[in-house]
Amino acid sequence: MAVRAELLKNIWSVEPYVPGEQPQEKVVKLNTNENPYPPAPGVQEALASLDPADFRLYPDPASGVLVKALAENYKVSEDQIFVGVGSDDVLALCFLTFFNSGKPILFPDITYSFYKVWADLYRIPYECPELDKDFRIVKEDYYRQNGGIIFPNPNAPTAIYEELDFIEDVLEHNRDSIVIVDEAYVDFAGRSAMELVGKYDNLIVTQTFSKARSMAGMRIGYAVSDPDLIRCLNDVKYSFNSYTMSRAALVCGAAAVKDRDYLEETVRKIKETRERTKKELAELGFEFTDSKANFLFARHPEHDAGQLFEELKKANIYVRHWKDEKISQYLRITIGTDEEMDELFDFLRKRLS
Amino acid sequence: MAVRAELLKNIWSVEPYVPGEQPQEKVVKLNTNENPYPPAPGVQEALASLDPADFRLYPDPASGVLVKALAENYKVSEDQIFVGVGSDDVLALCFLTFFNSGKPILFPDITYSFYKVWADLYRIPYECPELDKDFRIVKEDYYRQNGGIIFPNPNAPTAIYEELDFIEDVLEHNRDSIVIVDEAYVDFAGRSAMELVGKYDNLIVTQTFSKARSMAGMRIGYAVSDPDLIRCLNDVKYSFNSYTMSRAALVCGAAAVKDRDYLEETVRKIKETRERTKKELAELGFEFTDSKANFLFARHPEHDAGQLFEELKKANIYVRHWKDEKISQYLRITIGTDEEMDELFDFLRKRLS
Repeated sequence: MAVRAELLKNIWSVEPYVPGEQPQEKVVKLNTNENPYPPAPGVQEALASLDPADFRLYPDPASGVLVKALAENYKVSEDQIFVGVGSDDVLALCFLTFFNSGKPILFPDITYSFYKVWADLYRIPYECPELDKDFRIVKEDYYRQNGGIIFPNPNAPTAIYEELDFIEDVLEHNRDSIVIVDEAYVDFAGRSAMELVGKYDNLIVTQTFSKARSMAGMRIGYAVSDPDLIRCLNDVKYSFNSYTMSRAALVCGAAAVKDRDYLEETVRKIKETRERTKKELAELGFEFTDSKANFLFARHPEHDAGQLFEELKKANIYVRHWKDEKISQYLRITIGTDEEMDELFDFLRKRLS
Repeated sequence: MAVRAELLKNIWSVEPYVPGEQPQEKVVKLNTNENPYPPAPGVQEALASLDPADFRLYPDPASGVLVKALAENYKVSEDQIFVGVGSDDVLALCFLTFFNSGKPILFPDITYSFYKVWADLYRIPYECPELDKDFRIVKEDYYRQNGGIIFPNPNAPTAIYEELDFIEDVLEHNRDSIVIVDEAYVDFAGRSAMELVGKYDNLIVTQTFSKARSMAGMRIGYAVSDPDLIRCLNDVKYSFNSYTMSRAALVCGAAAVKDRDYLEETVRKIKETRERTKKELAELGFEFTDSKANFLFARHPEHDAGQLFEELKKANIYVRHWKDEKISQYLRITIGTDEEMDELFDFLRKRLS
């Protein structure tokens, strides 16, 4: 049965987004910036501690156990933390809650592709200042009237990290706008803007459990900000969906936060592999930005990125490639284990020699 | 630090929804229509089978394992199933996807309170035909131009179930509108409209794991419909959030679906307790609709519902009460175990004698 045309005419029709492939067979999976290492050992214990009999009850709508663990970790008060189903959920709710002035919000032309989607979804006008020729955000482009500002730091997929004085400059020039710094990859980079939260009441910092904390499969993200802004987020969230975080996510998430040593060790290993990857790819003639994330944004001046992408895929090595003209000659390569990267280098050495 | 007024003026300000209380201490909890029995035994095994090392990877965006289990259970094809983070997530996405005609959608004046919220959120106009004096939906009120129709069956909080010929009449009179039947409580009632899905291409049936399947804590809901409509839902979902269901929810949900005997046995026990509760409350002078759900919608002609609610709460017996004038003399009482209901009856016997 096919639905009749009369029915389809009032349906919101969208360009379907194609997420990075999640192959079921065994491949070298360097395409969705996942962490190659398992989550903290405490997550196993947390999982084992779950009593399925409790699943009959709704989860705590305030996500107390996870909020408390995050507040203790960052030495902020619990009313400065908001949690959601991945940072996508948190960011979409921030768009809905904070970007209501009617003035265009600002984000870079090359950045996380969902910003545009959420702006369209909530009918928020936006303008996208271009990155400079080195793929850097030009902060002065954000010194003008706007309805809010958002950018990732490090930016994606460029992998470039800006220091906190850059963030402060943007905040200082936008005291009456909400500025969201999306720090999905900050653990691999440098200082977090979270330390500026007490100083600027217009700052919201978001992070995720999907990258450094190895919990992409459990869908956990969070925002840290002024208690007044967090209250606004909670009001909007409660007003249309009270229970989003499952009992399993809350308990496993809290366990992951508590093991700071494990996080540091995991991040250290990934950064070492990243720096080694830079050397290997440079020797092979690749050019890339100075990544401070868990991926490289790389091109080869003599080889078409789309073709390399397809050949890698045939060899069961998955990386990411976009057809968007501005970045179509680049590959985004997640940093995996040393062994995974060796498979990539081996393939490329043979292919490019 | 308090946020400055300049910042607050562009924030979407909402009337904060107050979810049913989730007390941490031990109470007789008859306030959020949870199931008093644990989920199917297979859920424990599914939980134990989870390898936390896999949490580092994103979940399957297509939710394959859960979709397959549901398709097999309902004997429909996999492309007729959409899953989400509780039926709230599924329903909100249906509003966004299907109610775009600009014409008012229709739902009863007394019904699930979130319909109004999602309509406001997505700027969908709506009209709310009144229930009749017995709290029944008047189907003829839905035989007019509209941008879509949604109602729960059984309706909430009235607990009244309408037979499938009623649903068919609504579908027949609205061939060019999407009709969503929200069957959160149908397992406690009678036949599901799911058997009409092959017959009417304008029908979407939603269900949840939070009630009969005892999985409120894991946040799982789903829709069954024509493959074309399910594809539209998936397109919209993928376009702005690819990964919503955690690995734990997918695996535990699939296990719960597979145990049909356990579901039937649990539902049978709850229905028995419900019928016994009707007898006991009738003897105490309560009046109520003929509930086909896992809760009663009851009033006492001689006692103020708000006051009873407060007194019950002081006695650590939590039920639900709304201040909305049309239903302010009613209590919504979840069906718990026989022992829990006995505590309620004991209190009421003393209080009302």
